[in-house]
Amino acid sequence: MAKQTEFVREVADMKADFPQWYTDVVLKTGLVDYGPVKGTMVIRPYGYAIWEIIQKELDARFKATGHRNAYFPMFIPESYLKREAEHVEGFAPEVAVVTYAGGAELAEKLVVRPTSETIICEMYAKWMQSYRDLPIKINQWANVVRWEKTTRPFLRTSEFLWQEGHTAHATEEEALAETMQMLEVYREFAETVLAVPVFVGRKTEKEKFAGAVATFGMEAMMLDGKSLQAGTSHYLGQNFAKAFNMQFLDRDGKHKYAYSSSWGVSTRLIGALIMAHGDQRGLVLPPHVAPVQAVIIPIADHRPGVREKAAELFSALEKAGIRAELDSRDYSPGWKFNEWEMKGAPVRIEVGPRDIEQGTVFVARRDTLEKQTLPMEGLAGSVSALLEEIQKNMLEKSRAFRDSHVVTAGDFEDFKEAVNGNFVKCGWCGDRACEDRIKEETAATARVMPFDEEASGTCVCCGKPAKHTVLFAKAY
Amino acid sequence: MAKQTEFVREVADMKADFPQWYTDVVLKTGLVDYGPVKGTMVIRPYGYAIWEIIQKELDARFKATGHRNAYFPMFIPESYLKREAEHVEGFAPEVAVVTYAGGAELAEKLVVRPTSETIICEMYAKWMQSYRDLPIKINQWANVVRWEKTTRPFLRTSEFLWQEGHTAHATEEEALAETMQMLEVYREFAETVLAVPVFVGRKTEKEKFAGAVATFGMEAMMLDGKSLQAGTSHYLGQNFAKAFNMQFLDRDGKHKYAYSSSWGVSTRLIGALIMAHGDQRGLVLPPHVAPVQAVIIPIADHRPGVREKAAELFSALEKAGIRAELDSRDYSPGWKFNEWEMKGAPVRIEVGPRDIEQGTVFVARRDTLEKQTLPMEGLAGSVSALLEEIQKNMLEKSRAFRDSHVVTAGDFEDFKEAVNGNFVKCGWCGDRACEDRIKEETAATARVMPFDEEASGTCVCCGKPAKHTVLFAKAY
Repeated sequence: MAKQTEFVREVADMKADFPQWYTDVVLKTGLVDYGPVKGTMVIRPYGYAIWEIIQKELDARFKATGHRNAYFPMFIPESYLKREAEHVEGFAPEVAVVTYAGGAELAEKLVVRPTSETIICEMYAKWMQSYRDLPIKINQWANVVRWEKTTRPFLRTSEFLWQEGHTAHATEEEALAETMQMLEVYREFAETVLAVPVFVGRKTEKEKFAGAVATFGMEAMMLDGKSLQAGTSHYLGQNFAKAFNMQFLDRDGKHKYAYSSSWGVSTRLIGALIMAHGDQRGLVLPPHVAPVQAVIIPIADHRPGVREKAAELFSALEKAGIRAELDSRDYSPGWKFNEWEMKGAPVRIEVGPRDIEQGTVFVARRDTLEKQTLPMEGLAGSVSALLEEIQKNMLEKSRAFRDSHVVTAGDFEDFKEAVNGNFVKCGWCGDRACEDRIKEETAATARVMPFDEEASGTCVCCGKPAKHTVLFAKAY
Repeated sequence: MAKQTEFVREVADMKADFPQWYTDVVLKTGLVDYGPVKGTMVIRPYGYAIWEIIQKELDARFKATGHRNAYFPMFIPESYLKREAEHVEGFAPEVAVVTYAGGAELAEKLVVRPTSETIICEMYAKWMQSYRDLPIKINQWANVVRWEKTTRPFLRTSEFLWQEGHTAHATEEEALAETMQMLEVYREFAETVLAVPVFVGRKTEKEKFAGAVATFGMEAMMLDGKSLQAGTSHYLGQNFAKAFNMQFLDRDGKHKYAYSSSWGVSTRLIGALIMAHGDQRGLVLPPHVAPVQAVIIPIADHRPGVREKAAELFSALEKAGIRAELDSRDYSPGWKFNEWEMKGAPVRIEVGPRDIEQGTVFVARRDTLEKQTLPMEGLAGSVSALLEEIQKNMLEKSRAFRDSHVVTAGDFEDFKEAVNGNFVKCGWCGDRACEDRIKEETAATARVMPFDEEASGTCVCCGKPAKHTVLFAKAY
């Protein structure tokens, strides 16, 4: 196990330098690499395999809720961005702009989509004649570009991959219901698949999406007590409908503006996974999103029968729907143990001559590092059960960690202390001035105003009566 | 069926004006729409659903042949493009260029990828240390941009979706084998899934990919006798390896340049489908790629039991793995018949009160327009069988059409006549001058030099001894 020691030495101490630990882990496990242009990333096969599972899981949920996929051009005429005043203010500073193409300067500059509300509403306006054409419920899987000064793989990059849902409805009620439904789809997905429990709620005006009436989000707690915005769902009201003349003929014979929503999650989720579950040995992947759920490592595979038995077990696991891998590469078992531990495979199975004699295998789980012996007979069934147990355990562990890092604060002095490494749940008067001051003095921001939380007590900043209960935290 | 007449009237006569027929069909069936920026397209849900099936089918084949997906940035430093001389010459005139981002002018201009050999080889060079790291076999699903003067939805657009495989190998032999393997994957896919028989072979020097040693392609014949390049597989030799210093330490302790390949197909394939199978009534989709394979239309659904029975049959089809749709929209049956015919659904099933009494359904197939009565009992099985029969029939029909439109030509005068509406198979001396002259005088180009065709006879253009047998055709 010389290699394990080496890996641990190569990776920064997560307690002492969490950001460096993150960077070391994502690079050394082959999830990602830096692209040649500053701020860009290459998503390597192991990282992309996680994204494919995320896509598959989410896509099934989108389709089950009546959405269809489509694809809109990534080049948006610059003038479109300007039609919604808040929207352009929010996005203009971050856009990348194409000024010439096909050897000639363009008459109108083209913005590379930072998000697609503008171009999609333009198209919906064309497709929408009467109430019969509504609702329109479309999702798009795409790349987007937001030019950022400070970047970090998965968390904030100039280009990233995401999905963006865009819907148009005849009534405010329906559009709001859609907004809430998709937030719930995200929350359930985060907990069920990523084993990341999240806080959901409404964003403050300061933190909402540029152009939205209201933004709702889910926030995940990372192991350093900071928050990561893991998904958002926006109620856009008629803001974009008015900017893009998105009207329909209603049953009553009147032309009306539609109500719209948009919602998205991105490759950031891979960052959330890493920082919610990792440890000093590297990644710890929840089985539901792990590209390799169980790796089989043959021991002394020059001995008769070992390769055959390993292949037989591999095939049994695969047949049972387990994402299994048989690692028969020309490296030592110890080297492989280390690599798969670092890569966070939930279950490692060792098969050697003695195991074959005894009709058992040696099984190590990544989350608790516990080891056990299991009979070869019915291995697929016991591994499936073990994977479910790991998934459950990881969610519970994350939830316990999270719950123990949500604190309250009586006044601003308490707050300043408490917000280091914790989420602080407290009262807020609703004034932007207090929100700004909190950010300025503590670097913490209002993450969400949780649903079903009555405002009580006083504003943690100014001491006036609280209008909202807010979760504040430092955020990625 | 008033609506059918209307649709036929709305669509150009395919015999008289095939290009207009194509445009009418793709727009009116909701496959695609024009984007706001000239030359761009919006792939609407029905069109995107076809693309999703194409992706799923191809992706499974790529994985089965040992490839993994990844994602590389779409912004490529302009200098990269220039490192391979032929490559820049081929692509520079078509690129879109980002000159400022994040509110500032960029120090180096960024090209939006027209293809990714350059950036991928740059990364491979970094990842490749020794022979143990080879082969690298990666595929990417992505959008690309090529600024074109004349555009047409799916066939040629400024931005399109595709997959690009990029592999690196230790030996020339392996890289060539990979190039050929992927061409065969494409050919098998085109025939099995799209029901489009293709000609495969090598491209001439004039027609090869900019930067390749050799390009191999598959060409599909459209119903107007023109050719559509449906997929290409390039053997790149060490050209990009040398330009990007892609070296590895071989077993013999020497540093060597790797050999690489690249291969791709795009949303063009949707255009091929339409033009290979369509008719005056609209789309005719092969079952293996049809988003809706069987549509159930309830007749007189206000009558008791109709809706229930239709829902029951729908659920039976779905359970059998058929992509079924129950069309219970508030339109007349005739309107729906027309719409699904126009949209090319392979099988239409009608269920009304009399059918229920008799325990049968009325079934119409789109390819032959034949109608039959089938028992409700075991419907899923008989529909599955019918879908396979339709798939087979469509391939055979396409093959017969194609074979009857491949002609020979004794001399250039024959050729000029024959190449209208046909592929011409003939001898070519191998000189660029003849190839250029053929294009100039007939607008036809060398599509492929089919494998296993001995050169015989004389060059169709100059009469000198032929070095190659070539398929010439006018092409999209």
